[in-house]
Amino acid sequence: MTKRKTLQRSKDQRVIDIRSRSGAYQVLIGQGAVRDLGEQIHSRKLSRRVAVISDTNVLAHWADAVVGSLKARRIEPTLLALPPGESQKTLASAQKLYGDLIEGGFTRKDAVIALGGGVIGDLAGFVAATYHRGVPLIHVPTSLLAQVDSSIGGKVAVDHLLGKNLVGAFYPPRFVLCDPSVLSTLAERERWSGLAEVVKAALIADRELLKLLEANLEQLAVNPSAPLLLEVIQRSIAIKAKIVSRDELEEGDRVLLNFGHTVGHALEVVTGYRPLTHGEAVVLGMRAAVAVSLRLGRCPAAEASRALGLLSRFPLITALPPPDVNQVLEAARRDKKNAPQKIRFVVLLKAGKAAVEPMLEPALLREVVTELISQFPGV
Amino acid sequence: MTKRKTLQRSKDQRVIDIRSRSGAYQVLIGQGAVRDLGEQIHSRKLSRRVAVISDTNVLAHWADAVVGSLKARRIEPTLLALPPGESQKTLASAQKLYGDLIEGGFTRKDAVIALGGGVIGDLAGFVAATYHRGVPLIHVPTSLLAQVDSSIGGKVAVDHLLGKNLVGAFYPPRFVLCDPSVLSTLAERERWSGLAEVVKAALIADRELLKLLEANLEQLAVNPSAPLLLEVIQRSIAIKAKIVSRDELEEGDRVLLNFGHTVGHALEVVTGYRPLTHGEAVVLGMRAAVAVSLRLGRCPAAEASRALGLLSRFPLITALPPPDVNQVLEAARRDKKNAPQKIRFVVLLKAGKAAVEPMLEPALLREVVTELISQFPGV
Repeated sequence: MTKRKTLQRSKDQRVIDIRSRSGAYQVLIGQGAVRDLGEQIHSRKLSRRVAVISDTNVLAHWADAVVGSLKARRIEPTLLALPPGESQKTLASAQKLYGDLIEGGFTRKDAVIALGGGVIGDLAGFVAATYHRGVPLIHVPTSLLAQVDSSIGGKVAVDHLLGKNLVGAFYPPRFVLCDPSVLSTLAERERWSGLAEVVKAALIADRELLKLLEANLEQLAVNPSAPLLLEVIQRSIAIKAKIVSRDELEEGDRVLLNFGHTVGHALEVVTGYRPLTHGEAVVLGMRAAVAVSLRLGRCPAAEASRALGLLSRFPLITALPPPDVNQVLEAARRDKKNAPQKIRFVVLLKAGKAAVEPMLEPALLREVVTELISQFPGV
Repeated sequence: MTKRKTLQRSKDQRVIDIRSRSGAYQVLIGQGAVRDLGEQIHSRKLSRRVAVISDTNVLAHWADAVVGSLKARRIEPTLLALPPGESQKTLASAQKLYGDLIEGGFTRKDAVIALGGGVIGDLAGFVAATYHRGVPLIHVPTSLLAQVDSSIGGKVAVDHLLGKNLVGAFYPPRFVLCDPSVLSTLAERERWSGLAEVVKAALIADRELLKLLEANLEQLAVNPSAPLLLEVIQRSIAIKAKIVSRDELEEGDRVLLNFGHTVGHALEVVTGYRPLTHGEAVVLGMRAAVAVSLRLGRCPAAEASRALGLLSRFPLITALPPPDVNQVLEAARRDKKNAPQKIRFVVLLKAGKAAVEPMLEPALLREVVTELISQFPGV
C-alpha cells in the first residue's frame, strides 16, 4: 500500500494528454507505474470487472504485479492468455476472445486491459472496439515498440490472410499506462526494434531527442539507465501524441509517422514477416527514405548523412536473402495508405523534420530500392 | 437523364439531418430516390469506385436500377452478393467480404454501399466500419424495417454464435437513401414486421403518427398509397433521427428506442429466431411493456388500452409453441443493455411518450411474461 502510493507520487511520473473525438485521454509514464493500474482504474471509476488480454510470455513475468494491483482496489480481473506472436492477430483469435467475454458475462461497462506488445495491443484493442460496439480499453504496453508507438494514437487492428492490419478501427483507450521497468525482461533484439521507432520520431520531429540517441543508442539497446530510458520514451510519446492529437483519423499529417514505413512494410510483406522485426524493416525503410529525400533535393547532404550515420548503428540483419525488387515495389504501391497509381511518400527535410511528397515518381523509388537491396549481404 | 432529374427535384423528396461525432449526415427520402444514387455520390465527391454489398433476392429486383444510376455518373460498381438471411450476419461473411475488397483493390477512399434489409445493412456496415479502419458507407435500405429503423443511427454489427449483434460498432454512414418504391417487392409479413417499429416510434414519441396508424394500419401492410407510405416512413425516421442525434452512443435516452425490445429480444433468443420475425417479437414485447407500465401505475388505463388496441391489430402468430417463462426472463436479464442484477426497462407514460424505468422488479416482469405466454395459442 505504502509502496504503491510512493510510486504514484514519484516525481518521475509523467503525464501526456492526447486529444481524440471521444475526448482527451492520458498517457501515464513512470518507473513502477504498472503497480498503479488498480488505483488508476479505481480513481477514474471505470469498471469493477476487467478482462486482461495478454500472452503467456508477458503473463509469466507480469501477471502477479497486475493482478495484485487490481485486487488491491477490489477490481476483479479475468486473465485471457494467448500464445505469443503475430500469428495470433486474426479475426479467429478475436472470435475466441468474444466468446470468452460473453461466457464470462462481461457487459459493455466492463473494461478490457491490453497487457503486452504490439500484437496484443492491436488485437485486444480491436476486441474492445467491437465487443458490444465498444467497451472501455486500457493499454499497458510491455514492449518498447508498443510503449513509444503502437499503444499511442488509437489504431487497433487484426491481420487478414491477404495483408496486415487490413481490418481495424480508430478506437482511443481510456488511458495508457507506460512502465519502463517492464522492459527489463525484453530481449535485446526487441529493444533494437523499438528503438527504430524512437529514431523515426527523432528524425521527423525532435533534434533534442536525436542528440540523446546519437550519444546513447547502443546503451539504450543493451542496458539503459532508468532516467535515460524514461526520458527517451517520454519524448517519443510526446511527438506521436502531438501528431495524433492534430489528426486522429490520418486524414492529414499523421502520415508523417509513416516515415520509413512505405519501403519498410513492403520488405516485411515480401519476406513474409519472419526474418525481420518491424524495427529492422523500418530501419531499412528509413535508409531508403533518406536516399529518396536526397535525390529529390529535399534534404541537404549533411543532414542526410547525419540521419544515415545514426541508422547505420543498428545491427545488420545477416540472415536475409535479398528480396525481389519488383515485388518490393508492388507491395509499396499496394500499401493501404496509397491511392492507386501514385505513391505518397514521407521525405526528410533535415534531421528533425519531415514532409509529405504526394506523388513520388515510381522510377526514383525503384532506383533507391535496387540500391538498398544491392547492399544486402550475399549479393 | 430527364427522368432522374425530375425525380430528384420532386417535391416529395424529404431530407432529415442526423448529428454524429463524425459530423452530420442526411437521410434522403423519396419515391424513386434509388435512381439518384449515382448523382448523390457524385455531387458529394465521395468515390469513383464503390462496392455494392447486397443479397441475391434484392439484386434480382434492384441491381439494374442501382448499377444504371451509378454508371450514369461514371462510378464503377462491384457487386458483392450474399445469400439472403440472418445466418449470413457473421464474422465469417465479413472475412469473405474483406477478401473480396482486398482482391478488388479497394482502398480506404472507395465506398461501400449496403443495399438490402437489416442483415445487409448491419453486415456491410460492419465491414465498412472495419475495412482499412473505416471506409465511406452509404445505406440504401430495401425493407421497411431497415428504412425506418436499422439504417438510421449508425449501429452496425455481426452476430456471434453465443448471441446477436454482440460484435459491432457505432459507425455513421455518409448518407442514407430511402426509396419507398422499393418496398413494393416485399412480402406482406415483412411489411408487418417493419410496421412494428413504426408503431413503436409512434408510441414512444408521436401522437400524430399514432393517429395515422390507427386510421391506416392494415392498408399500410397490404397496399399503401405512395403518399401515405412516404409520410409514415418520414415521420418514423424523424423520431429516430432526433433521438440518435441527441445520444449517438446510447449513453442516455437512446435506450427509449428499446421500447418493447427487452421481452421482444428475449422471445427471439428463446425461440431461436426462426418462428418470429423481429417485428412480431417486438409487438409481443410492446404488449408486455404496456402491461408493465400499467401495473407500475406509470400509464393511465385509457392510454394503455389505446396502445394495446393498435398492437392487437397485428396478425397473430399461430405456429409458435409457448416458450418457457424462466428462459425468457433469463434472456431478458442477459440483454446486453443491462448491467447484472437489474433490468432497465422502457415504460409507456401515455400513447406517444415513454420513459426509462432504471430498476424493474424481476417479479413484476415474471407476472407479465407469464400472462403474455398464457395467451399464446395452444396453451
